[in-house]
Formats: sequence, C-alpha cells, structure tokens
Amino acid sequence: MRKMKRVAISIGDLNGIGIELALKNHYEVSKIVEPVYMIDSVMLDRCSKLLDIAIPDGFETLESVGEAFDIRPSQVSANSGRYSYDSFMKAIELARDGVVDAIVTLPIHKKAWEMAGIEYKGHTDALRDIFGADAIMMLGCEQMFVALYTEHIPLRDVADSISVDGLSRFLIDFYHSITLKDSEKIALLGLNPHAGDGGVLGDEEYIIKDATVKAHEVLGRDIYTEPLVPDVAFTPRVREKYRYFVAMYHDQGLAPLKALHFDEGINVSLNLPIVRTSVDHGTAFDIAYSGADISNLSYINAIKYI
Amino acid sequence: MRKMKRVAISIGDLNGIGIELALKNHYEVSKIVEPVYMIDSVMLDRCSKLLDIAIPDGFETLESVGEAFDIRPSQVSANSGRYSYDSFMKAIELARDGVVDAIVTLPIHKKAWEMAGIEYKGHTDALRDIFGADAIMMLGCEQMFVALYTEHIPLRDVADSISVDGLSRFLIDFYHSITLKDSEKIALLGLNPHAGDGGVLGDEEYIIKDATVKAHEVLGRDIYTEPLVPDVAFTPRVREKYRYFVAMYHDQGLAPLKALHFDEGINVSLNLPIVRTSVDHGTAFDIAYSGADISNLSYINAIKYI
Repeated sequence: MRKMKRVAISIGDLNGIGIELALKNHYEVSKIVEPVYMIDSVMLDRCSKLLDIAIPDGFETLESVGEAFDIRPSQVSANSGRYSYDSFMKAIELARDGVVDAIVTLPIHKKAWEMAGIEYKGHTDALRDIFGADAIMMLGCEQMFVALYTEHIPLRDVADSISVDGLSRFLIDFYHSITLKDSEKIALLGLNPHAGDGGVLGDEEYIIKDATVKAHEVLGRDIYTEPLVPDVAFTPRVREKYRYFVAMYHDQGLAPLKALHFDEGINVSLNLPIVRTSVDHGTAFDIAYSGADISNLSYINAIKYI
Repeated sequence: MRKMKRVAISIGDLNGIGIELALKNHYEVSKIVEPVYMIDSVMLDRCSKLLDIAIPDGFETLESVGEAFDIRPSQVSANSGRYSYDSFMKAIELARDGVVDAIVTLPIHKKAWEMAGIEYKGHTDALRDIFGADAIMMLGCEQMFVALYTEHIPLRDVADSISVDGLSRFLIDFYHSITLKDSEKIALLGLNPHAGDGGVLGDEEYIIKDATVKAHEVLGRDIYTEPLVPDVAFTPRVREKYRYFVAMYHDQGLAPLKALHFDEGINVSLNLPIVRTSVDHGTAFDIAYSGADISNLSYINAIKYI
C-alpha cells in the first residue's frame, strides 16, 4: 500500500474563508493526504466558535504559530496578515525539514501582508526569494494548466520581458517540472494578435521561436509548438490537443482559463525544491463567516495535485 | 407584416468555403432576409459544378462583378483576391445607394488581397477608409459581444494607445451603436493584471476611469463599469450580468470569447453609415471544396443580427 503523503496546510488569512474550508473539508482531505494545519489551538478555538463549526477529530495543529489576535470577519488587518505569513513560514519550515512532503496554501490577503510590513507581494514571490529559485507559476485544473512566463507586471512591460535567454531557460525549467506522456506536446502562445501575422503585427514571435529552438536543442526533443495565435489557442479544437499551455503574460492565459474553469482551478508553484499548491481564489471577504455556501472544488483539487 | 430586409452577401474568396456556405444555406437565409449574392452567373456556375451543388431556386446574383477566373480550391491567388474585393465593393455600392439594407460578408483571404495589390488589410480597414469613419469592431454572439478599443496592433503599442480623448470618444460612439435595455450596463475592462491593483501593476486604469467619467458626462448617464479585472471579467458570475464588453486590446477580448463561443461568433462593424456583419471565421482552405462538414452557425448568426 502506498503511504499517504503528509501535507502542511498553511491556514491563510483567518478573517477570510480559508479556515472554514479547512474545517468543513477535513474528512474529505484526510482520505487523500495526511494534513497538518498550520494553526494553534487558541486561534483554532476562536475560529471554530465564530463559525459555529466543531473541530473535527484528528484535526492536527501546531503548538504555536504566531501571535493570537481577535478575528474580525472580512476585515483587512495587520495582525491577521502577520499570522497568515507566520503560518506560511511554518509550512515552509516543515517542508524544508522533510517533516511534510508538500504544502497546500489557503488564501492570504495581499494588503494585509503589506499592512503587517511583510516585504513579499504573495506566496510565489516569497517562495522565489526564500529558495533563491525561479519559481514557475502554473494555474489550472485537470483539463488544462497554464504556466505564466511573465506574471504580475504592467502590460506595457510584457513585450520587453521576452528574451531568448530568459524564455528558453523558462521552457527548459517548465519541461522538467511536469510529466508529459509520450509524444505529448506543450502549447506555446505567441504574444501579438494573430501571432504577429508574419511580423506585420509585432515581431516578438521570432524571439519566441528562437527561444524554442534553443530549448529544444538542450532538451534533445521537440516539446513546444510554434507560437500559437493567442485567441485561437483556447478554442475547443486546439484545447483538446494539449494539457499544458505556456502564456506570455498573466491575462493571456488566465482570462480564457478562468472563463472556462473558474471554481475548480488551482495554483501550483513549480521549479522549487518543495511542492506547493494553492487554491486559486482569494479570501472571499464578501462571504467569509456568513454561512454562505463555499465551493471546495479548488481546495480539493489543490490537495489532489500533491 | 414587416417587410423583409434586403441584404447584399459579399461572396468572399471563391477558392474558400464562402460560396459553399451561400449555396447550402440559401433557403434558410431566405426565411430571414432577402439575399442578393455579389457573384455573377459565370463564376457561380463554375463553383456549383466544382462543388457538385445545384444552384438553388431564387439565388439572385448580379450581372457582372469582376473578371472571371479558374477556381483553384484552397489556393491563395491574386485573381481570387481581386474578385472577392470587387464583390465586397459591389455590396458597399448597393448599400450606399439604398438598394439593400445591409451587408453580410463571407470570408476573404488577406494575403490574396495583398497579392491583388489591394491596399486594405481587410473588410473593416476598407470600410473605415471608404466611409471616413471610426468603424468599431465588435465580435460575439447572442450571449456576449466584445467591442475592441484597439485591434490589429502589436501588443507593445497597446498601453500607449489608451488616451482619455480617444477612449471617451470610443465609449460614446459605441454606446450610440447598440441598443441597451433599461439600466443595462456595459462591462469595461482594465488593461493590467488585477486591473493594476491600485497602480502597483500599471496605471492605465486611471486613464480608463477618466475616459469613462468624460463619456458619462456627455451621455448624461452612467453606462460603463469601473475597469474590471481582465481575468475575472469573463467568469460565469460576471458574464451573467452583461451582454456587452469593451476590451482594451484584441486578445484580451477575443481569447475568452472564442474559448467560450467559437463556432457561433460573428463580426459586426459599428459606427458606420451602413450595417455590416460578417462570419467570424476565415476561408478554411483546409476543408474548402472537400465535402467536409462546414458549420453554418456563424453565417446564420451574421444574417440574424441584421
């Protein structure tokens, strides 16, 4: 029998929906992995009372995580930001020490991190710095995953960020981060409308092609497609041929992905010494602690990916 | 009884699938409008023989359109390009003279136009020049339409194309080109990831807001939303609130649209003295004259929009 993987669940912003997801889905999650929750009993008790959800049996927590504070449902606050950061750091510590096999993160609030004086913009940014590695951000679900070559930068900076060296390194790293089936290819997107239409609508597609040639030389195998026409790449007839897509920028990949698969998507950090997946939604302050129905699709998929 | 509208069907590149669509769907089209096809009997006979499709009763054509040539199925050729241009010009002539109420265009091949020495990149470009008007390109189907503020330009030029004057004029023109229901709003997209996240990921959203304020002042009514987060704008919960979307650039609007509604989309030219709709697909040289099944959804929807 395969041993179940042990997973550190970083608990996210406790003023948001993360803790409710953790409590309500503990039994389902426990069928897939052995979860350890990065929260201490003081805070867990407070959340459980406020939510009026009993703490499930076998809900394993830590002795201490961070400074206790009063939950303020749906409020952006420095102390909740700090606690969510401490919770995330505990998860990384356990993963580094080999105590857990992977990390799953529940949503933090970026503004709360900023208010707590935390220098990182989010999880991926922190992981990149902590491990000194070019983490690759990939979002998606079983039907399709989209890896982002550029992420959180202004649209006006995207074109100049595409270089043969940078992109070929990305393509090589990404290939090594996933497992392809025999002869499976990865859909690589162009940058410009109609993929530049032979240079008439932009010429970054030539850089993308050069980067692909360079990556294929190193890999000794043709993995990536020609730069695909971006507005055709996600149509049914193209989609059915690929599981993995590489987008040149944030909205190029994520707008079609989220249009097609909203509730079920997850966020995966690749190219790191540890495995980390995350729900692909925020703290949902609009419905936190309200008793509203919360979809667990993304959370369960994040657990399953491990 | 409402009089049926009379519509000029510009026949497209005769080496492609347009003529097959026209022949096969004539009876269905005739239930919706009174079509006049911008083709002459010599070329119609040649196509009909090659396709082995009889010319339907009441298939009204013109006496002369352009120079006859030998059909070469699926070939890009100068004479086919020239004929498709002449066919389009005939349609415009009839619309200008009030002989028809609208134009529906079947697909031309841009390279064929170029080979024929035609200065325009495509239909919309030609219409813009001929009518000296800022034609607005809108694509979509009954469920959602996307109007493009910038169209066929390199991605690197998009950010600098957004100005308060240009965008507010566009927003005013677009509003006047469509019919909204009471209190219906139009979804206006931001430019940057997360709509700039308060300026951290780009600041064009401030220009977009200023343009919106200016447009609303002129229109005396609030029509457009705040700049929406682009990768959230097309998710089901947002989509269900709007029929019309304004995208800042080509792929921002068309990639999600085509991911969701591929076969059924049409292309509409707004803000012109004439009404023109078009199929939203190309000449399909890969299946032209092959006997393959051709979806008529886009064609029929283009007819219905009239």
